[in-house]
Amino acid sequence: MSHHVPQKVLFKHCDPAGIVFYPRYFEMINDAMEDWFAGPLGAPWEVFHKTNACPSVEINVTFMAVSRHGDQLDLRVQVEKLGRSSVTVLVDAYCGDQQRFAARVTLVCIRSDTTRPEPWPDEIRTQMERFSG
Amino acid sequence: MSHHVPQKVLFKHCDPAGIVFYPRYFEMINDAMEDWFAGPLGAPWEVFHKTNACPSVEINVTFMAVSRHGDQLDLRVQVEKLGRSSVTVLVDAYCGDQQRFAARVTLVCIRSDTTRPEPWPDEIRTQMERFSG
Amino acid sequence: MSHHVPQKVLFKHCDPAGIVFYPRYFEMINDAMEDWFAGPLGAPWEVFHKTNACPSVEINVTFMAVSRHGDQLDLRVQVEKLGRSSVTVLVDAYCGDQQRFAARVTLVCIRSDTTRPEPWPDEIRTQMERFSG
Amino acid sequence: MSHHVPQKVLFKHCDPAGIVFYPRYFEMINDAMEDWFAGPLGAPWEVFHKTNACPSVEINVTFMAVSRHGDQLDLRVQVEKLGRSSVTVLVDAYCGDQQRFAARVTLVCIRSDTTRPEPWPDEIRTQMERFSG
Repeated sequence: MSHHVPQKVLFKHCDPAGIVFYPRYFEMINDAMEDWFAGPLGAPWEVFHKTNACPSVEINVTFMAVSRHGDQLDLRVQVEKLGRSSVTVLVDAYCGDQQRFAARVTLVCIRSDTTRPEPWPDEIRTQMERFSG
Repeated sequence: MSHHVPQKVLFKHCDPAGIVFYPRYFEMINDAMEDWFAGPLGAPWEVFHKTNACPSVEINVTFMAVSRHGDQLDLRVQVEKLGRSSVTVLVDAYCGDQQRFAARVTLVCIRSDTTRPEPWPDEIRTQMERFSG
Repeated sequence: MSHHVPQKVLFKHCDPAGIVFYPRYFEMINDAMEDWFAGPLGAPWEVFHKTNACPSVEINVTFMAVSRHGDQLDLRVQVEKLGRSSVTVLVDAYCGDQQRFAARVTLVCIRSDTTRPEPWPDEIRTQMERFSG
Repeated sequence: MSHHVPQKVLFKHCDPAGIVFYPRYFEMINDAMEDWFAGPLGAPWEVFHKTNACPSVEINVTFMAVSRHGDQLDLRVQVEKLGRSSVTVLVDAYCGDQQRFAARVTLVCIRSDTTRPEPWPDEIRTQMERFSG
């Protein structure tokens, strides 16, 4: 199962060539992740971040085709691998049938006070499993 | 040989946890690349982009340690692999002796009008070779 | 009549103090304007910008109260003054009953090729008038 | 006396029309302010923000002429009015002789813990006075 996040390509995302400036894609990826936590995972970051954080430790992205101003993107969030205190998430962006990028992001759950890894809370883990495979 | 780009971590780069929000790292990486083209490669993007562009087709980043407001980063740009119309660049960021991230970015040289790949101009290629190995 | 644009305060908008970093408000204001053009004005920027542009020539913003991560903002777009080729727009942001900022933005309609001002197209002007007073 | 901050217009600042996207100007304005505090005012924000903050309460900007990729801007910071716990700062941007924008920003010094205004520390006030008139 995938979590879908619609994202129109806006003026602010585009560079002088009229295509998405790639650091803006990382904002979209981060927004999609925040939306996934706030929605199906039941852990809005404004609450989760009071005690925890989930920094990205690794990101790999392949850009398949450019996106232009006005394109209606569909970002699809899936779990590739769920560890005890980490999760590797796939974020694929499509415009219609055409894939624009494939991202793999590994997040780690840490405690805010110690910044040490700690296991995902059970409620979050249970929800993450639904987006796996 | 590496091209060094100093980058202080500014207020605008930091998130509510007081550390760099990772999409801002991609702006720094892009700025370092722009600085490398404008400086040693002798091809400022505001000129190069009149006829060409060099979109990123793949990016892999490992984040080793967090960066905080005020940290003085040193971004080091090196060539890992130089192809006919592509180049894979390593961008490593250090704060003193501590590595903060290791990025590998693959760029492709295209013509602006056709958006088709074309070989790097000789003058750019010659300069890129100096940053290889 | 106002055009309403909902905007949740996201992680990416916030600074180390946990409040919205003000340049992000200007992205929100710009997004609200883009949404107004794409929606009620019937002139999505990805189409409008093929022949025209509407750069901002003046912006005044008063920040009344801070916004925090998770706040649900309501941006309200209204026309204060409609000129031949300019428009002064008020963008007010509320969270519940509390006003967060009041912005006044003056845009000018120009032709892309000459960058000279030209009158708003009639269809856009007619729609703008509905948001006036 | 003015504090001068050089700022090249980079690829990341520009929109599909090839000119600076105005929310990026506000990042430049904020960077210039941070540079002014870190330099002549002797109060780097990464230190100042441990006990205090200086949110902007009002911003007015007039955009006189567009800036393009590669333009070398000179941002000039001056004090218009220094209050007990506030300061109104003028930030003017030039490219050569041509003024690109004129900004007026009012900041208030607050305590981080209470978020209540408090007088500027004497050392900062003394330095600010040098940039007045």
